[in-house]
Amino acid sequence: MSKKVSKIAILTSGGDAPGMNATIRAVVRTGVYLGLEVYGIMRGYSGMMEDDIFPMGSKTVANIIQRGGTILKSARCREFYTEEGRAQAYANLKKRGIDGLVVIGGDGSFTGAMKLQNEFGLPVIGLPGTIDKDLYGTDFTIGFDTACNTAVQAIDKIRDTADAHDRLFIVEVMGRHAGYIALHSGIATGAETILIPEAATNIEDVIASLSEKEKRKKLVNIIVVAEGDAFGGANEVAKIVRERLPNFDTKVSILGHIQRGGSPTCIDRLVASRMGYHAVEALIAGKSNVMVGIINNEIVYTPLEVAIREKDSIDENWLRIVKILAS
Amino acid sequence: MSKKVSKIAILTSGGDAPGMNATIRAVVRTGVYLGLEVYGIMRGYSGMMEDDIFPMGSKTVANIIQRGGTILKSARCREFYTEEGRAQAYANLKKRGIDGLVVIGGDGSFTGAMKLQNEFGLPVIGLPGTIDKDLYGTDFTIGFDTACNTAVQAIDKIRDTADAHDRLFIVEVMGRHAGYIALHSGIATGAETILIPEAATNIEDVIASLSEKEKRKKLVNIIVVAEGDAFGGANEVAKIVRERLPNFDTKVSILGHIQRGGSPTCIDRLVASRMGYHAVEALIAGKSNVMVGIINNEIVYTPLEVAIREKDSIDENWLRIVKILAS
Amino acid sequence: MSKKVSKIAILTSGGDAPGMNATIRAVVRTGVYLGLEVYGIMRGYSGMMEDDIFPMGSKTVANIIQRGGTILKSARCREFYTEEGRAQAYANLKKRGIDGLVVIGGDGSFTGAMKLQNEFGLPVIGLPGTIDKDLYGTDFTIGFDTACNTAVQAIDKIRDTADAHDRLFIVEVMGRHAGYIALHSGIATGAETILIPEAATNIEDVIASLSEKEKRKKLVNIIVVAEGDAFGGANEVAKIVRERLPNFDTKVSILGHIQRGGSPTCIDRLVASRMGYHAVEALIAGKSNVMVGIINNEIVYTPLEVAIREKDSIDENWLRIVKILAS
Amino acid sequence: MSKKVSKIAILTSGGDAPGMNATIRAVVRTGVYLGLEVYGIMRGYSGMMEDDIFPMGSKTVANIIQRGGTILKSARCREFYTEEGRAQAYANLKKRGIDGLVVIGGDGSFTGAMKLQNEFGLPVIGLPGTIDKDLYGTDFTIGFDTACNTAVQAIDKIRDTADAHDRLFIVEVMGRHAGYIALHSGIATGAETILIPEAATNIEDVIASLSEKEKRKKLVNIIVVAEGDAFGGANEVAKIVRERLPNFDTKVSILGHIQRGGSPTCIDRLVASRMGYHAVEALIAGKSNVMVGIINNEIVYTPLEVAIREKDSIDENWLRIVKILAS
Repeated sequence: MSKKVSKIAILTSGGDAPGMNATIRAVVRTGVYLGLEVYGIMRGYSGMMEDDIFPMGSKTVANIIQRGGTILKSARCREFYTEEGRAQAYANLKKRGIDGLVVIGGDGSFTGAMKLQNEFGLPVIGLPGTIDKDLYGTDFTIGFDTACNTAVQAIDKIRDTADAHDRLFIVEVMGRHAGYIALHSGIATGAETILIPEAATNIEDVIASLSEKEKRKKLVNIIVVAEGDAFGGANEVAKIVRERLPNFDTKVSILGHIQRGGSPTCIDRLVASRMGYHAVEALIAGKSNVMVGIINNEIVYTPLEVAIREKDSIDENWLRIVKILAS
Repeated sequence: MSKKVSKIAILTSGGDAPGMNATIRAVVRTGVYLGLEVYGIMRGYSGMMEDDIFPMGSKTVANIIQRGGTILKSARCREFYTEEGRAQAYANLKKRGIDGLVVIGGDGSFTGAMKLQNEFGLPVIGLPGTIDKDLYGTDFTIGFDTACNTAVQAIDKIRDTADAHDRLFIVEVMGRHAGYIALHSGIATGAETILIPEAATNIEDVIASLSEKEKRKKLVNIIVVAEGDAFGGANEVAKIVRERLPNFDTKVSILGHIQRGGSPTCIDRLVASRMGYHAVEALIAGKSNVMVGIINNEIVYTPLEVAIREKDSIDENWLRIVKILAS
Repeated sequence: MSKKVSKIAILTSGGDAPGMNATIRAVVRTGVYLGLEVYGIMRGYSGMMEDDIFPMGSKTVANIIQRGGTILKSARCREFYTEEGRAQAYANLKKRGIDGLVVIGGDGSFTGAMKLQNEFGLPVIGLPGTIDKDLYGTDFTIGFDTACNTAVQAIDKIRDTADAHDRLFIVEVMGRHAGYIALHSGIATGAETILIPEAATNIEDVIASLSEKEKRKKLVNIIVVAEGDAFGGANEVAKIVRERLPNFDTKVSILGHIQRGGSPTCIDRLVASRMGYHAVEALIAGKSNVMVGIINNEIVYTPLEVAIREKDSIDENWLRIVKILAS
Repeated sequence: MSKKVSKIAILTSGGDAPGMNATIRAVVRTGVYLGLEVYGIMRGYSGMMEDDIFPMGSKTVANIIQRGGTILKSARCREFYTEEGRAQAYANLKKRGIDGLVVIGGDGSFTGAMKLQNEFGLPVIGLPGTIDKDLYGTDFTIGFDTACNTAVQAIDKIRDTADAHDRLFIVEVMGRHAGYIALHSGIATGAETILIPEAATNIEDVIASLSEKEKRKKLVNIIVVAEGDAFGGANEVAKIVRERLPNFDTKVSILGHIQRGGSPTCIDRLVASRMGYHAVEALIAGKSNVMVGIINNEIVYTPLEVAIREKDSIDENWLRIVKILAS
């Protein structure tokens, strides 16, 4: 049976993602509307430990739905890995009477949240804020669609210059453990090949496919590589390609941190708004230790440990479509 | 039992939508890959009647995945409404041995396709190419996500100036029979109220809500109206608001045709690529008279007449969330 | 001989323009760096009258260089038109010891500034913040380049749909007294004709030129009209074109307020930064009643009354180039 | 005394730049309008040698003004460095009666053009097509403004994530011999320091300035480095900073080839249109061996060898303004 929640706090943690601000806005305004007091915690668990916590009202989140980054900032916090650290952090919540916590972030952030729940009984709700879409239990993570579009717009620009010079570009996008940004941006930009952690990279296949393109005088090609691909990043792939296929004019582009920033897309703002609303509803309904996700357009609650541990599989059909459409 | 398809044609019809070119690319390349001959038809049913039909190969669709508009152009065709007109149009397909047709468009386009199927036995597959998302049987239509993002970016700009001047803006977006662009762009831009054809507009509620905002000195507000809202467009709403709440500095902005153009978003390119691929697969599998849609991430085939006739309902939850988040 | 300035204030007034925030940042940081106290005034002359004035430091302008709108807001102020009103406003400056004022805005804003100088001896510097580029004495106004690019991107989208449907679009852009946005965006989007206040519109020429295009089957055409064109806006032009040339599929698009918002372009931020810096330098150097402008890449000071009264002429060469390039 | 020109050719060469297509359009349409025959040459001097030359009319350049890249493609051509190579290339022009050439590119491209003029008496006009703005004799080069805006938008995104994590980002932009992209994008994004080839980099100053920021707890900082800075690129700078100031969370981002692509800005399209027009006028007027530039809004003709050899100096004032505004 759930104790009634009356004061909740919110923090953002881990790598920032576009839409975090829209999520904060949704949590704060839903909380206020439903009669709760809402606190913001600066810099994730660091601010919790350092007591950098402040009350938030509807106006404090005005005009932020469209902003990249996070007004609550984010940080890694080593001290929070220790039990003493967490006790100190929790004490700062307790003294304010905070009896519910919403954590926006990825797997590291959720691990911290679970410890707060398990060690102190604090109800915690996780919201999937990660551009990589590397959490189980949701079709969307906050920031993923924006990161994909940023990558697509960058690769479109690269295609302009690739096309002007008949070049082969090997483009590295983010994704340490998940290849979704690579997959989606690669399909959307007509990539010749897409290399992702979820599928073993056969470099001989890559070479063979490029060789065939070379014979057909199709010299403009884009290969998209996820940074976490087991074979190695774009530079590794380029090294092999340059050795084996010296006739290609091969260039590397590593998109890097631009993928984290920018104004969120429409979908990321919708997902953020909906998840933020349901995080508060979930706390009020007595839920804890779960991540709010959206599957088949329905809100689904997945235990945090499952969200971290399990992994979505990449739809094999897509890899077939990639091959056909790049022909 | 299905006759084997060997030559297919593709056309775009009705209002153009971003992603049509990505769809054409997918249909052509999938067709060629699977051993079919593929023809392009210019200007929809007009080009079919005027015999403006030409063979397409993989290279003819190179470097178009990112382009707005449609390289096959689109047009209305009055003559096609007559049986003679359609007979003439079909004859142009027949003389080339074209035994399958992919139609990218909305309800009018699908009506034409059904007639070709019914009158001449031509296998036809419809792909939902409409920014309004006004077809039944799919979570996504080609162009919808781009139109929403275009609207969002425009309204973000309007919010800059609204905020600078403490103004109320009434913004009209496209959507004659469906309020999805209004709903999505309104949520994503933090609109105070969203007026759509699917829900009766109670102008007294609008006035009351604004009055309450006025009392709280919240003068910067955005109302998003779908052009097809039964109450009337942005100008109608503005007229009432100006009379009843003269203290608001009320401005109108009608976004208009910019919502049709532009480079498609990542999702629209994915949807276009996937649907284009499955349209060809469907023809080969002997399907006809159906629209390819995506529901809960699965490919679903809906009879064209159902896709036109039935209507998705708007999720009531969203309207509640809008109210809370704009507070 | 100049009295040493020690406390300056800044306000934004009139229609907002992208780059105003970058200008505020430059004025504040330059002032602080050079040892002055800097005050911000909210909502232009309204805030001056209502004593809505607050001290600004370097941190108060952090992370705003890229934002549209103006953090100081803008407003019209009727009471400021009276001598009593201005006396009250000036008293609020005087009691703080403010001995210099930077006004970012257009002609109305400069008129107010001149009165403060003339009536109370307050040193005032004007900075040209107007998207219309309707001030004399500068090659650039703050916001103009952004507005042009916003118009260009919108018209590019319109061209996508114009091209798909073989349509004639008549697009209205901002510019009540100056046709620069129309001229620049029209050239940049390959407009067939550009109608501006500075040149008499001969509708017969427009009709003749379109007729000739019709004969050559060039059906996709864009006409760009400044809102202040003497002939009338886009709707007026469309009415005539539809009557006289019914074969064109003529559509109207009025871009409206989106042209005021958005993140400023690189040039607008450079211009804003440079002008903001020189405004403070000018006050320190004892200048007053002048607008800071940039002509041929040099800083030029023009008396405010001249900046308002005189008018740049449009380079006739451009109109010839438009005609040739649209052929 | 000038011989009348009747057939001209156009090519793009060297690194591609946004606006090259707008330039091609202007040259072709102006040429046709003035009664000349116009030829396009594919892949720069390579296509000239390989006889890949084709007639261009007004329609061949329709709907390209907004496209990045170059429809004529670009390439390096080693064989053209030999006299035999050039003789062969010139023969391909001569046999068509081509008596004028417009070359869009940078210093390498102009060197080739001068040889054609000197060795064969072919009238040549150079147009400055380079994102780096590394040519003397013009305030604008085609593509520069777009590249600056692309860099600015990328750095804005990086600032979002820098701000969320209190990070120092060292961003490398293009510019091997000229620091203009670094200077302009750095000012426009509020960079703390800008390192360019034109000014000696004193790494001790950089460290001292960052140290001072660290003391003031200003941890979010952007340093923009031109790739051609004598000290080394972003990675070199980061190495030193990480050693000397380990408390900063220092990240590197190399923007790379995205700076070459994308739809040109309004200014780049204006510059391209104007220069393209004047290139043809110049050929008709009997000019040769000169680059068309724009200085103080006037068309200026600079001998190609001067345009290559001389160098603009960076305005020292800007470096002072950078320092003040980043404070």
